[in-house]
Amino acid sequence: MSEKQTVAPSLTKTSKPSVQHLLGIEGLALSFVQDVLARAEHLLTAVVQPERIVTAMPGKIIAPLFFEASTRTRHSFEIAALRLGAILLPVRTETSSIVKGESVLDTVKTLEALGVRYFIIRHANNGLPAWIADQVNATSHVINAGDGANEHPTQALLDLLTIQQVKPRFQSLIVAIVGDIVHSRVAHSLTQALFLMGVPEVRWIGPASLLPEEIPPPGVRCFERLEQGLGGADVIVTLRLQQERAHFSFDTNWYSTHFGLTETRLKLAKPGAIVLHPGPVNRDVEIDAKVLESSQSLIQKQVRNGVAVRMAVLQLLGEAKGDAV
Amino acid sequence: MSEKQTVAPSLTKTSKPSVQHLLGIEGLALSFVQDVLARAEHLLTAVVQPERIVTAMPGKIIAPLFFEASTRTRHSFEIAALRLGAILLPVRTETSSIVKGESVLDTVKTLEALGVRYFIIRHANNGLPAWIADQVNATSHVINAGDGANEHPTQALLDLLTIQQVKPRFQSLIVAIVGDIVHSRVAHSLTQALFLMGVPEVRWIGPASLLPEEIPPPGVRCFERLEQGLGGADVIVTLRLQQERAHFSFDTNWYSTHFGLTETRLKLAKPGAIVLHPGPVNRDVEIDAKVLESSQSLIQKQVRNGVAVRMAVLQLLGEAKGDAV
Amino acid sequence: MSEKQTVAPSLTKTSKPSVQHLLGIEGLALSFVQDVLARAEHLLTAVVQPERIVTAMPGKIIAPLFFEASTRTRHSFEIAALRLGAILLPVRTETSSIVKGESVLDTVKTLEALGVRYFIIRHANNGLPAWIADQVNATSHVINAGDGANEHPTQALLDLLTIQQVKPRFQSLIVAIVGDIVHSRVAHSLTQALFLMGVPEVRWIGPASLLPEEIPPPGVRCFERLEQGLGGADVIVTLRLQQERAHFSFDTNWYSTHFGLTETRLKLAKPGAIVLHPGPVNRDVEIDAKVLESSQSLIQKQVRNGVAVRMAVLQLLGEAKGDAV
Repeated sequence: MSEKQTVAPSLTKTSKPSVQHLLGIEGLALSFVQDVLARAEHLLTAVVQPERIVTAMPGKIIAPLFFEASTRTRHSFEIAALRLGAILLPVRTETSSIVKGESVLDTVKTLEALGVRYFIIRHANNGLPAWIADQVNATSHVINAGDGANEHPTQALLDLLTIQQVKPRFQSLIVAIVGDIVHSRVAHSLTQALFLMGVPEVRWIGPASLLPEEIPPPGVRCFERLEQGLGGADVIVTLRLQQERAHFSFDTNWYSTHFGLTETRLKLAKPGAIVLHPGPVNRDVEIDAKVLESSQSLIQKQVRNGVAVRMAVLQLLGEAKGDAV
Repeated sequence: MSEKQTVAPSLTKTSKPSVQHLLGIEGLALSFVQDVLARAEHLLTAVVQPERIVTAMPGKIIAPLFFEASTRTRHSFEIAALRLGAILLPVRTETSSIVKGESVLDTVKTLEALGVRYFIIRHANNGLPAWIADQVNATSHVINAGDGANEHPTQALLDLLTIQQVKPRFQSLIVAIVGDIVHSRVAHSLTQALFLMGVPEVRWIGPASLLPEEIPPPGVRCFERLEQGLGGADVIVTLRLQQERAHFSFDTNWYSTHFGLTETRLKLAKPGAIVLHPGPVNRDVEIDAKVLESSQSLIQKQVRNGVAVRMAVLQLLGEAKGDAV
Repeated sequence: MSEKQTVAPSLTKTSKPSVQHLLGIEGLALSFVQDVLARAEHLLTAVVQPERIVTAMPGKIIAPLFFEASTRTRHSFEIAALRLGAILLPVRTETSSIVKGESVLDTVKTLEALGVRYFIIRHANNGLPAWIADQVNATSHVINAGDGANEHPTQALLDLLTIQQVKPRFQSLIVAIVGDIVHSRVAHSLTQALFLMGVPEVRWIGPASLLPEEIPPPGVRCFERLEQGLGGADVIVTLRLQQERAHFSFDTNWYSTHFGLTETRLKLAKPGAIVLHPGPVNRDVEIDAKVLESSQSLIQKQVRNGVAVRMAVLQLLGEAKGDAV
């Protein structure tokens, strides 16, 4: 798995929207992101919070293809599909990084012939969902649910929704992302999404070995000390230390001592700063338990927003063929 | 796994009903048990037997969390959920006793944030469902589907329903429970449930090593010989020899010779006595094949009743917040 | 696993239809097969292609019991069940040939008591679905989804439908089946199905070790050279080389050199001959990639037809009790 370290905030309204698939934040039009956020906010109020089911996608078949372990993201998509009244196909996949692209493609082509229309793919290899998307029918939709160190677009979209609910003026925000930046598809997707929304400054904070070696893209400032990076931040996104990954060789005590978000450190940020985490949290490693349980932590809200965002994405891709968004 | 050996028929109408969760028979009000039985009898006739599906719980999400192997109980809950029109979340759990409480709690909290309202938990550790229930939101419901040697309340409720259909005068019944009493959550829950319904005498029958060492609770009589214990019994509940459990060191031939329910032994009970078993039966070990297939064996009926009882429980917990039962 | 090598086209309109179960093509009445094809064609147009869901079987519970690995057939049945509005029970089975018949029967009897009505069984042992069918209630239905080297009736029915859509005059067709005839339940079921539909000549083509030792049934001609067998064929059904099977000891290079269907060899068949394969294809072994992607290959259509055929079977078994077909 190679690392994707260039994160360019290069997207503007002139990029053509790709609304058949959701493969990454890179290449998305601002208008599509805004549509997702608006639709998600509506679905949150109309369907998710009142715990309803609607018949928005009757007969449409959705297949989750997760080749990496996942509880939160997989169930979030499953609930989104079921709340929309779609058919959720119970696919059993080996959660093993050795499942090759060819084999994934064979499965996808078979499922496509069976009538599956939405493929939600998580895989350890960068770019695998995009490679699959190049080879499916025009009526099929591929959604990237996380590919290697590359992208995790629905996570970025739910982060945007969570931020927008509290701090809707993106143009005036400073957002700090803390942790293993270099291996993080969450950091990669979120950074691009924030720039797309007009955020002027994104900070990448972590030990030198977890920051990219190259010069960061314009708008990004790197910090090797948490205390320096937090000053004036409106939003703090802590990343998960992925101890299960092969490249991981950190002492978690050392990490939490230097980069754990404690109550004291949180005070360095702007008053009312909010704390996000893609989950699952390593309690007292990335975030102190007290911060976790404070009102500034919006982690539970992120999870709930995730269902609404995934419903919105499923619906908008479905509508895209009739009239372009 | 420690054993819970004190089984006290201490419940009276004055105990406050706990209708947010169903954690055990202990602590339940008689009125709640009666509500479950009445509702289950109605659902059996109206939904289960005509093989219908109703939209009683549309949009409500139910998650089965089984950390011990189960076919019957798990599928019974799944069918109950689906017949009620609920969303059944396809949760994959390791059926391993080493899954720790903390890890179960993390899963539950994530699922709760995703919108799951009903958690059906089976785990090898006594008290784990109750410990989880203490930490969930007021809108969440925990149902104990079997915890260690502690409780298995829906099994006891379906046993009550099966008995009631044939011998509705609980106040005049003698009920014999045969087998591994000391390790059996079924025996524990059922004994309490029978006393709650007014049964005057419960007998625990088994080899000395499988009976509790302490003095049994009032109303319980212990027998180390099956022939002695069966005399005059109206109901015989045979327990499963759980050969897969670590503590098990029995010769099944010896057991069936001394405690297997044969046609000859069944004649020692009252004429028309009925035979129950929580399943799966070890054929010709706990029960002779001929007894199994006789009209006195109600084991298949128990299974069918189980679906109705679980539907009733899901519905009544759901209603409990509006107006207390 | 013993091999079933006698394939007799012995069925006539006088055989009594067995419409409680679908255990094989052997024993089926022509009228039932015609009903399946007509119903499937209707469902294809009315439900499968417009991607709808209907409420034809609300409350009916369907359990897939797959004791051999399967993606295509299992998902095909699952989608068929869900498109008919049935309840699909999420059964987890060990895909292991060592699961014994007794154990399968215990599971079936438990599920039957829980209310399951349709059992879709795949197992490595010849005749296991039929053995189960002998022991279920009159209201239960067993569908054979592949048993050892014996039968795979829904595959044969979907092959018939695919052939009929392009070449509806079965009475004038020559059909060539290529590959491991002797171990193939597909070849066995399909040969019988073709004779039932009036096909005058079926050819079995393969290396001597993969053809039956006995004299083939009337109407079947055997060929040990592909080039000889293809002459004048209207339909070519290539079988999968099942390298995962214990008996397999073939060099796939040798096989593809002698029996792989190339463009050149395909030209030996009748112009407009069609190519089928039950899937999954070993690309460039049984069929050359160019043939696979040509318009003569109907493999993707087979997959889509499979959903409609399985819907038809589920429905017709369901209707059979009221009025015999």
